[in-house]
Amino acid sequence: MPTPSVDPADPVFRLHAGGKMAVAATVPLTSREDLSLAYTPGVARVCEAIAADPGLADDYTWVSHTVAVVTDGSAVLGLGNIGPRAALPVMEGKAVLFKQFAGVDAVPICLDTQDVDEIVATVRALAPSFGGINLEDISAPRCFEVERRLDEALPIPVFHDDQHGTAIVVLAALRNAATLLNRKLGDLRVAVSGAGAAGVAVTRMLIAGGVDPDQVVVCDSRGILGPHRELTGSKAELAALTNADGRHGDITEALRGADVLIGVSGGQIPEAAVAGMAPDGVVFALANPTPEVHPEVAGRHVAVVATGRSDYPNQINNVLAFPGVFRGALDARATRITDGMKVAAADAIAGVVDGALSADAIVPSPLDPRVAPAVAEAVAEAARRDGVARA
Amino acid sequence: MPTPSVDPADPVFRLHAGGKMAVAATVPLTSREDLSLAYTPGVARVCEAIAADPGLADDYTWVSHTVAVVTDGSAVLGLGNIGPRAALPVMEGKAVLFKQFAGVDAVPICLDTQDVDEIVATVRALAPSFGGINLEDISAPRCFEVERRLDEALPIPVFHDDQHGTAIVVLAALRNAATLLNRKLGDLRVAVSGAGAAGVAVTRMLIAGGVDPDQVVVCDSRGILGPHRELTGSKAELAALTNADGRHGDITEALRGADVLIGVSGGQIPEAAVAGMAPDGVVFALANPTPEVHPEVAGRHVAVVATGRSDYPNQINNVLAFPGVFRGALDARATRITDGMKVAAADAIAGVVDGALSADAIVPSPLDPRVAPAVAEAVAEAARRDGVARA
Repeated sequence: MPTPSVDPADPVFRLHAGGKMAVAATVPLTSREDLSLAYTPGVARVCEAIAADPGLADDYTWVSHTVAVVTDGSAVLGLGNIGPRAALPVMEGKAVLFKQFAGVDAVPICLDTQDVDEIVATVRALAPSFGGINLEDISAPRCFEVERRLDEALPIPVFHDDQHGTAIVVLAALRNAATLLNRKLGDLRVAVSGAGAAGVAVTRMLIAGGVDPDQVVVCDSRGILGPHRELTGSKAELAALTNADGRHGDITEALRGADVLIGVSGGQIPEAAVAGMAPDGVVFALANPTPEVHPEVAGRHVAVVATGRSDYPNQINNVLAFPGVFRGALDARATRITDGMKVAAADAIAGVVDGALSADAIVPSPLDPRVAPAVAEAVAEAARRDGVARA
Repeated sequence: MPTPSVDPADPVFRLHAGGKMAVAATVPLTSREDLSLAYTPGVARVCEAIAADPGLADDYTWVSHTVAVVTDGSAVLGLGNIGPRAALPVMEGKAVLFKQFAGVDAVPICLDTQDVDEIVATVRALAPSFGGINLEDISAPRCFEVERRLDEALPIPVFHDDQHGTAIVVLAALRNAATLLNRKLGDLRVAVSGAGAAGVAVTRMLIAGGVDPDQVVVCDSRGILGPHRELTGSKAELAALTNADGRHGDITEALRGADVLIGVSGGQIPEAAVAGMAPDGVVFALANPTPEVHPEVAGRHVAVVATGRSDYPNQINNVLAFPGVFRGALDARATRITDGMKVAAADAIAGVVDGALSADAIVPSPLDPRVAPAVAEAVAEAARRDGVARA
């Protein structure tokens, strides 16, 4: 690619000059008295109390409202493996969204390694400083192992947003689409196009939310996953979980008679394939900036269309999920994020739309201030129900 | 020790409830337009520009004003090895002081390891997220190796504040004490009591600032370091560097005829030893909360006394150094912190006192707002002079 030009007067570069975030003191620091309370000698008593009872760190440090946004820069937006420094503007953006929507204090941590063992060791080492770990833009299949190992090792929530944030919002949107069409999730025939991080998580989330795994097929770039393919890892697991009829073929075959297409691959899908779907279908074409099928093209053949773009209706945007998910997990002092908490988050997002539900409004606006509090409350409640809450 | 009691109504605990810091967005995030500039799709152009030219991260992310405050919790204040969670209140305090005095955005990173290799690997991995690394409260001798290896490995400033922050303020104070007493640094006979992190750094800094190494003796708990002792590591280096006369004996012997005592050990020093110093002497008794010799006792025998305490005159407080040192290093985009930059910082601190110099005012107040900008300017200038500046 050509070297991108930098125009300091351009609105995007002007906005990003000096970065997008700062740290702020929440205590006064102007007198000797202030210093002796907030720093030495006063602080020593707080340290001693936490040393005697480590749980007090939740009460007397910022961990209770703080999340690390951790990336290795290997799968940033649609840009690919651009490394940790170039990933930082995205992580800062994520951090300020955490603050804006849920009052969560997030810190970007961009790692100078793409080795799974080193990523896991680094995040384990720095974890005492934070109340949660938001993994971000780590490429598949490494992201699965990184998340699994950290989730097992750490006593705080670990959440790979590219997987679960997307999956939560997709489930929320599909719930509302089904309501609108007077269908039940368990009756829908679903084709997922894409078996990377998002495809794996979306498929699992839909099943956790009520979709019948026997009615799901997942495609990668070579076609439908099933027993006829030689697969390993997460794709083998998906093949075993889905496609009960043993179907094979390409995406056109997968879509024949399907009620729902979830595109999370970026691979283009021909109009003829969409035309083969069942009546009153649903298409979520989430690749950004170029959806798998153009929303206007899809709209000729199905009843509900959603994309990842802000310039069309029904934007499937992770910001609907991650701020509230972590706010709720932190409020409940959850030790992890369960499937039940994710489903509760999806239900809460879907619920915000409520009376305003229409084919052009199956999800709330990303700016709707009601979303994060509703998600947080539902997630905290689910954490308590699932026995992972400490508060 | 008995379990410390936690009284939530106590002013210290009330102040620390929820921690002492937060993250803040420095860009607007209220409209769709805001989101599309600060996050997708706008942010992608900034990422691409940095991917093509990594130096642009200094311009378009927060690294240019951001420091990680890294500890392993092994030597926190006078509390010892209390671990990473209990260390966090101190690191938060440090972070808010960075902000208050120098506008530096600092993030506490408390590590769940005390292994040198793991500390080095972790800090190397997370370094792309920050413009500098402030090491804090890591016990000797591990702190020397951690700092040396990180300084060699990273292209950003690495600074162990317990060593160099203290050393810089000691040099500043001794400069002004010498001025007041009409003495030259190079003529002073100096005894340093303590050969841990601070003792090593103070000795080296005084020599870098003009004290004659032949006129220095350093004591550890067993007495004067010299060729008669079997020593390794940093103590062996100090023994080789100092004590040209091959003196031996305890601190009383070390102080006989000395002009200056620098106590950085916590070990008590008897009044009789101080009484053996030369006329018009200087005592810096920096242990906290119990100085090596009580300042009122020392005052009977010497002309100038300083401590680490806020309730006596002449408080040797690192906050006089670290905010300005990092501000200056970041402003100059320095790749490391040289001895020249540290000496410049000391000179700047000493210079702020200027016309107000007296035996009870050899250093500025820790709250003096002139200090950090003066230090920052001097440090940035020294970085350029020493050829380590990139701006």
